[in-house]
Amino acid sequence: MSNKPRLSIVGATGLVGREILRLVEERGFAYDELTLFSSSRSAGEEVFFDGQRLVVRELTREDFLASTDLALCSAGRAVSYKLREWVVGSDVVVVDNSSAFRMDPDVPLVVPEVNPEALLTHSGYVANPNCSTIQLVVALKPLHDAFELKRVVASTYQSVSGAGQGGMSELSAQSIALFNQGNAEQEVFPRRIAFNLVPHIGPFDDDGYTEEEMKVTHETRKILGLPELGVSCTAVRVPVFAGHAESVMVELGKDATVEQLRAALSTFPGIKVMDDPAAEEYPTPVDCVQKDEVLVGRIRRDPSGTRSFHLWVVADNLGKGAALNTLQIAEKLGQQALH
Amino acid sequence: MSNKPRLSIVGATGLVGREILRLVEERGFAYDELTLFSSSRSAGEEVFFDGQRLVVRELTREDFLASTDLALCSAGRAVSYKLREWVVGSDVVVVDNSSAFRMDPDVPLVVPEVNPEALLTHSGYVANPNCSTIQLVVALKPLHDAFELKRVVASTYQSVSGAGQGGMSELSAQSIALFNQGNAEQEVFPRRIAFNLVPHIGPFDDDGYTEEEMKVTHETRKILGLPELGVSCTAVRVPVFAGHAESVMVELGKDATVEQLRAALSTFPGIKVMDDPAAEEYPTPVDCVQKDEVLVGRIRRDPSGTRSFHLWVVADNLGKGAALNTLQIAEKLGQQALH
Repeated sequence: MSNKPRLSIVGATGLVGREILRLVEERGFAYDELTLFSSSRSAGEEVFFDGQRLVVRELTREDFLASTDLALCSAGRAVSYKLREWVVGSDVVVVDNSSAFRMDPDVPLVVPEVNPEALLTHSGYVANPNCSTIQLVVALKPLHDAFELKRVVASTYQSVSGAGQGGMSELSAQSIALFNQGNAEQEVFPRRIAFNLVPHIGPFDDDGYTEEEMKVTHETRKILGLPELGVSCTAVRVPVFAGHAESVMVELGKDATVEQLRAALSTFPGIKVMDDPAAEEYPTPVDCVQKDEVLVGRIRRDPSGTRSFHLWVVADNLGKGAALNTLQIAEKLGQQALH
Repeated sequence: MSNKPRLSIVGATGLVGREILRLVEERGFAYDELTLFSSSRSAGEEVFFDGQRLVVRELTREDFLASTDLALCSAGRAVSYKLREWVVGSDVVVVDNSSAFRMDPDVPLVVPEVNPEALLTHSGYVANPNCSTIQLVVALKPLHDAFELKRVVASTYQSVSGAGQGGMSELSAQSIALFNQGNAEQEVFPRRIAFNLVPHIGPFDDDGYTEEEMKVTHETRKILGLPELGVSCTAVRVPVFAGHAESVMVELGKDATVEQLRAALSTFPGIKVMDDPAAEEYPTPVDCVQKDEVLVGRIRRDPSGTRSFHLWVVADNLGKGAALNTLQIAEKLGQQALH
């Protein structure tokens, strides 16, 4: 296989697909040919890319296998199940942003700064973690390396773009309707999201956790290689268009100072520490949009007397939380040759 | 002192003052005369109340002392410092919603469902806790009584009405401006609040905590009578007009089931449990506005193997978090006679 793969983007007209395209251009990702695939609904749409118009093609098995060495896929679980079947026995490599195979023991679940070694043994299929998980594990990894993680408690503040274009439209429409004394439709989110909070992302399980919350628990354990780590999450949708934030409590095995935590975090690739209380510096969602780094601030010691600390972790859920991490996995695969 | 006090509302034109007035009428709070005070800026304004127009008077020492048996005050710390001086040696009782004297050992800090006994020994001055603290301690008290609290970790999602009318106007103006591709002023909040999150409520201390966060720590300990309890808070302003939410982790001394927690919470006065994952039932801020109860949902066991549980606690920050609790203190004082 050549160093310059024939690249396909599956789900090219979605929010994440478009962000992958933008990043392919911005980062100069080397490819031989580029094919854009979508569902039949969006097929035929034109996408302006790198100075030219590309026509989006309907995803079919034959066309996909004939035109693809490397596929970056963000088209939902159903498409991922098909793709994985299609690529069996082929040389095609898929980096998949859906949750379909993240917990499959044969599928590496990768954040390149955190567990690049997991890519050494893939069999053609690599999973991109959940957006909330990615920014969390980037912040956790340097703390675990230096001070040994004992426990993690996260509360998320997740923007509506995590629910795709429909989520963004719904926040917009509902907000405008409320300013006009009207009532807007509610379709994407299970409660009104405009000027409200919805602690319900994905279906509930028997223990009262949502799917989003358990993704964070299970995926964090897998990526960090700590299958017994106590990781809990409360996942909340907030009326913000872009950027996820997380209030994170970590309990450490070794004691540390806030300064030592800042030092460990700020020297880790992919993190930007924004944490100067005296200068009122801390990250907010508007600071993270189209930024590559996971932004970390509000670092402080818990007053409980345990070895616990708090962090405020902000990242672009469409970027590092999805498209950027997907492309970084592809870049890492390229460095080690895809197979 | 008569059972029907001459009632004064200080700060009558503010968001909390107006809500106190609304509740005085709604609850049929018994008073002999009613006087509304404000700063000179708002003096002369007319307020429509209980079928009549009342003129707001400028707060002066003589007028206040001559017309007041019981004062409900929500006018900021500076006014509270004055009032406390004025009432020394008088029979006037003040219930104060500011933070001025909350941590004063001579001033009871009261949530009537939680620590009514603290009212038995007041000396004319009673403090109403911070909005975030009130809804938290209401949820914590039955858990402590039944299962012994060991530790509390809270992350807040606080609406802009906690910052007064200016906060509501700023969210409104910024939101509308953004929909019109414009930029609105930023005055009340230290960062843009529209479609953003601001983890910065009040000034930072040397440990990196904000004043709001440390209020929750100190006030919770005082109200529960647990001066050593590990209580930490991350306080975040969210683009919601009314209603505060909190993601709360509690560590318990005795083990329990989720069902036992639900039972303890639902039999406690002032709490409404809204927690049926199978029916997708949980509280959101729009559910709590002008409701008396603290709404609790999303109750679940932490997967860490510790005796820890998570709760999602929602309440009307202008109601139970401020005006309602203030009036409930006054009602309780009335039951035991003011002095």
